[in-house]
Amino acid sequence: MASQSSEPTRIMMAVNESSIKGYPHASISSRTAFEWTVAKLVRSNAAGFRLLFLHVQVPDEDAFEDMDSIYASPEDFHNMNEKDRIRGLHLLEYFVKLCHQYEIPCEAWIKKGDPKELICSEVKRVKPDLLVVGSRGLGPFQRVFVGTVSEFCAKHADCPVITIKRKPADAPPDPVDD
Amino acid sequence: MASQSSEPTRIMMAVNESSIKGYPHASISSRTAFEWTVAKLVRSNAAGFRLLFLHVQVPDEDAFEDMDSIYASPEDFHNMNEKDRIRGLHLLEYFVKLCHQYEIPCEAWIKKGDPKELICSEVKRVKPDLLVVGSRGLGPFQRVFVGTVSEFCAKHADCPVITIKRKPADAPPDPVDD
Repeated sequence: MASQSSEPTRIMMAVNESSIKGYPHASISSRTAFEWTVAKLVRSNAAGFRLLFLHVQVPDEDAFEDMDSIYASPEDFHNMNEKDRIRGLHLLEYFVKLCHQYEIPCEAWIKKGDPKELICSEVKRVKPDLLVVGSRGLGPFQRVFVGTVSEFCAKHADCPVITIKRKPADAPPDPVDD
Repeated sequence: MASQSSEPTRIMMAVNESSIKGYPHASISSRTAFEWTVAKLVRSNAAGFRLLFLHVQVPDEDAFEDMDSIYASPEDFHNMNEKDRIRGLHLLEYFVKLCHQYEIPCEAWIKKGDPKELICSEVKRVKPDLLVVGSRGLGPFQRVFVGTVSEFCAKHADCPVITIKRKPADAPPDPVDD
């Protein structure tokens, strides 16, 4: 019998939205990382694990395009934040629902700011056993322009990190999309 | 119930010897990585996993000091290789015995050459679901001089990689030792 600790293994997963327009959905790499974690680590031992979903919202650069109103008062900004918040909740709901289907204990929360910095500070605070991050698996040329959250976390997070690359067959027409 | 594949999750572990003289033993970081894998991933689900231990033997730079004979004929080199081979087997025996205690299926083998290159080529050949490597957790200054196999593998191995850092409390007087 393998050594058995009473505490479940706490796996933190950083998840984000798809960048493909008209598709308000979990990104391909977030879903790939989640499916890999369940199939390869959790397996049939759902009670041995606890998944902690963190979604970091980035202030939306295209907000003016997406909105049908002009920012003229503090209330307009309040509405925008409210929209963002709802969008983030829908994203987390997707993963929490799947966990409930699989009977894997989980929790989920949203932070706002720079994803790479916030993921690392949340690791410090929450102290998971493992951090799983998805990656688009971009080549060196593409990486220079978009930066990669996964590389930063693998280097700076205060816990073991697994990076799960998106399958090449799942890549959208523009591989920078996800 | 979490999704359950019929095939066990195959975790490859690169293990090496202690560099501390007079201590012909698994390195501290190899043992730390193994213990973490069993406690945090395998847990009580021994049948769901298969551990694949790879030990890469590096031609020993201190061979002249360690040997009580002079290299004078091809047979002398044959003896050295034989000694190295036995040493590597003792190392693998340590991990295989622990797996048997825990009832975790495993296999183990030895390759000779450059560890970082061979670990990556064995990943290509064996196609594990996950590679676990131990790391001494050296600072940037120490890393420049000793190189780190774990960093190379995290970048170049064709599968997800977890790097498990040695606990600071376990570091020997010279942190480059292991």
